[in-house]
This record gives sequence, C-alpha cells and structure tokens, in this order.
Amino acid sequence: MMDNPRSDRVRSVAALSKRSVRSRTGRFAVEGPQGVREAVRHAPERVRDVYLTPDAAQRYAADLVEPARAAGLWVHEVTPEVLAAMADAEAPQGVLAVVDEASDALADVLAAAPRLLVLLTHVRDPGNAGTVIRGADAAGADAVLVSDASVDVHSPKVVRSTAGSLFHLPVVTGLDVAATLAALRAAGVRTLAADGAGTTLLPDADLTGPHCWVMGNEAWGLPAQTRDACDEVVRVPIHGRAESLNLAMAATICLYASAGVLGSGGGAG
Amino acid sequence: MMDNPRSDRVRSVAALSKRSVRSRTGRFAVEGPQGVREAVRHAPERVRDVYLTPDAAQRYAADLVEPARAAGLWVHEVTPEVLAAMADAEAPQGVLAVVDEASDALADVLAAAPRLLVLLTHVRDPGNAGTVIRGADAAGADAVLVSDASVDVHSPKVVRSTAGSLFHLPVVTGLDVAATLAALRAAGVRTLAADGAGTTLLPDADLTGPHCWVMGNEAWGLPAQTRDACDEVVRVPIHGRAESLNLAMAATICLYASAGVLGSGGGAG
Repeated sequence: MMDNPRSDRVRSVAALSKRSVRSRTGRFAVEGPQGVREAVRHAPERVRDVYLTPDAAQRYAADLVEPARAAGLWVHEVTPEVLAAMADAEAPQGVLAVVDEASDALADVLAAAPRLLVLLTHVRDPGNAGTVIRGADAAGADAVLVSDASVDVHSPKVVRSTAGSLFHLPVVTGLDVAATLAALRAAGVRTLAADGAGTTLLPDADLTGPHCWVMGNEAWGLPAQTRDACDEVVRVPIHGRAESLNLAMAATICLYASAGVLGSGGGAG
Repeated sequence: MMDNPRSDRVRSVAALSKRSVRSRTGRFAVEGPQGVREAVRHAPERVRDVYLTPDAAQRYAADLVEPARAAGLWVHEVTPEVLAAMADAEAPQGVLAVVDEASDALADVLAAAPRLLVLLTHVRDPGNAGTVIRGADAAGADAVLVSDASVDVHSPKVVRSTAGSLFHLPVVTGLDVAATLAALRAAGVRTLAADGAGTTLLPDADLTGPHCWVMGNEAWGLPAQTRDACDEVVRVPIHGRAESLNLAMAATICLYASAGVLGSGGGAG
C-alpha cells in the first residue's frame, strides 16, 4: 500500500498535469474508472501503472483489477490521500493510470483506407476536443486528426471528456494543417470544411466516398486559407434564432450525417 | 458610475447565483455580451437592469447599449470591481443583466400547435442542459420543457451555455413528467423517449408528425416507467467502440434528425 503523498513517485504522477512534463516523458494520466477500464481493455500495451484506493479496488475488481492483472499490468493499491495527490480531478473515484501517449501516424491511418475522418485545426476548449473524439468514436470514424495548434488531447480535461474513446480509435496529434490537407487529397480522401460560411448545406453534401470533416476554432471558425484548401465548405443549417451551434455539436451532427443514420427526418422545425 | 462593490445593490445581484434567491425574487443574472444582447433583443420586457464597465459600454455601444436604451431599459455604468463582485463567472467581459425568469406555460406551448419539442426529465449537468437548449433553438424546436427534477435553467452555468438561446424560444420549467406526457398525448404530440434501451433505431423512427423528444438523466437514462409512458423508445445508433453519446450530443442528433436536415448520409462509418 503506497501511503506517502509526498513521495517522488506521487510527485512525478501529479506532474503529468503539466504539458511540458507530458511532452518530455511521453506519458499522461487517465483518471476515473471508465477511462482506465477502456485503456486496460483497448490499449494495455500503453498502460504503465494502475493506481487504486482499497475501496475502488474492491468496487472495480471484476471490471478493472482482474483484466489489468490478466494483461500483466502493474496494479498498485494507494491510500485515498495518495490518489488525491496524484490526480488533477477533485473526485477521480479512486482510480488513476499512467499511460503512454498515442503514437499513431497519419501515414498509417491513410494506409488503412479510411472512410470517415475528422481534423481539428484550432480547437482550444478541452471539453469540445474530448466530446468530438467521443462523437467520432460513436459515429464510427476511423481516426481523429489534431493539428499542432489545438489543445493537447492528453490534458486531464480532454482525457476525461472523451469518456474512454481516446483508446478506441487512432488519434494523430501535432499535425500541420496544410500538409495534412494535401496528404488527405493525395490519399483520395475528400476534405469537407464545416463552417458557417459554407455554401453547401449539410443535407446536400455528397458524403458517399471517403471524406474528412475539417473543424475550426470555437470562436472564429476556419481561416479562409484553410477553407480554400478544402474540397468543399459545408454549413450545418441553423433554424430558429440561434446564431451557431457549438463546435462539438456541429462536429457530431456532421459525423452522424456521414454515418448515414440520420436519414428519415420529417417536416418539423 | 456605481463604484462600491459592497453596496446593497451589488450584494443583491451577486445573491442571484443562489437558487433560493432566484426562486424568491423570480429573477436571475445573465453574464457576458452575447447572452445580454439576446435578452435585450428578444425579451426586453423581462430585462430589469443592464450593468456595464466603461470599457464594455464603449465596445458594445451599437450592439447592446443603444438597443437597450432604445427599449427603455435601465443601463448602468459600473467599475470593473463592481461587475466582478456581481458576477458568478470569472470573466463576464464587463456585461451583466438582471432578468425576470421565464413564465412560459405548457398550455400556451401546446395551444400554439408545436411540431418539435424536447422534454428534459432529470438532466442535472448545467452544461448539458444549456447545450440542449442551444441545440433545440438551432434545430428549430418550438419549445424546451424541463421537469421539476432537472437542473435550474436559470443557474449561471446553464445560462452561459445556452449562448443566448434561452431568450429565443419558450422554456417551460418545473414540470411533472407523467402529467406532461399525458398533456402532450392529449394535444396530439407523439412522445419519443431517446434511450439506449430503445428498439427503434433513429433512422427508422417516424418523425413526420408533431413530436417531443424525452431525454433522461446523464448517468442512468430514463426510468422504465417514463419509457413505458412514451409512444416509442428510440435509440441513436452507436458505432465504433463507444458506449454512449453524452446527453447533449444525443439530444442534438435527435433534434436535427427531426428537423430533416441530415438526410443524405453515405456509406461511411
């Protein structure tokens, strides 16, 4: 039982809340049972250590501790004080894991003949980024691409809001937008900018072939040069008096439209 | 220029962050230029006072101060310290208004022959509630209905996350779920429970006539008795390995499916 909240190990886990430390170590922390369980299930080779309080070890024995031990992972019991000292969240429900950052490469994603992708170009809000990753997973996207100007997807808030989806599909980070758009085009993937300035309405967009949704910043959308570099600029229709949808909602609607599951709309609205 | 952050007026505005005070006074605070602008534009009869710092008064002169004065509203300049003392948000961008809570009634909503509604039955997260109201506005819904067991839609976090949509469509609060479902049925509005337990997939649901989406709690969904009381239980398809969508995303997808704008999905996903 680890019981010293001031130990070097506890400090080094807590330090993973800093981007510079994540970047130097190539690791990040996953907090809470859902995220840790999905990491253990779907990316056990990346899980370094799992920490649980005695209560949590009991509660999540079948769901988490046994699969982790079966996968040969290090599982440590720690006091609630140690877990609190390690965690960024106020109440991580007694569970935390240290995980290697994803090392997915754009070339690998493109080599797998993807049908549906999403590229985040300047997304800054952690909740939005996490929700888009979760929505991309639910819509059956093949990968999420993230530009170098976007929020760090391994930051605690993003990790939390992905609800485990971070371990369900490749997430490629640190991308240059212009080079990525060129690589997508060369791979036969159409690029669809989602933007209020679009002239094509979403229901009229051709979503049959492989394509990638390109999402801009929460506040200012996509810069003109990015829009111009895309094959098409598509607008989600806004009814009522709303000025816009938030980024995560717009992305989810676009991704679900691509998934073809929103086809039988009626006359309401 | 109001410059005393400890004055009675400042204290009484700050107290609106408490539900008990909102409930007693029937008023709430709207913070930030977007929300205040939409309140002034679309519900001026409910706006009691507008407070701005000198910087904000200059920045939002045409957008906010002039329309507010033209509508005969009280517009007060206050020091940044006074605004900070009034506000719940850390950075309300120098603008705050005190507004009467909505007094929309279900009977009025139903009398207007609505085509698209959404009912929040046990939604507890302020961000989710606000995002659903924003999504309902964007999808062209006729009103949002909120049960007595849901988060207070006039709390600062909900108001912020509606991005002004709170003033764009009727929001009826404090509803009893069973009575509301009965009233909807009597008015010829079909009730569609959105729930992972649904047997009808969203693309197969009949969304042509007047209908109301019924949304449950973030964590546990809808209780069986509410599902049973609805005309149909509809499931948003989940692809990939995701377990679920968050409530706001699921609601937005359902509402946009109703709006009929997500019709041309392709084969991806």
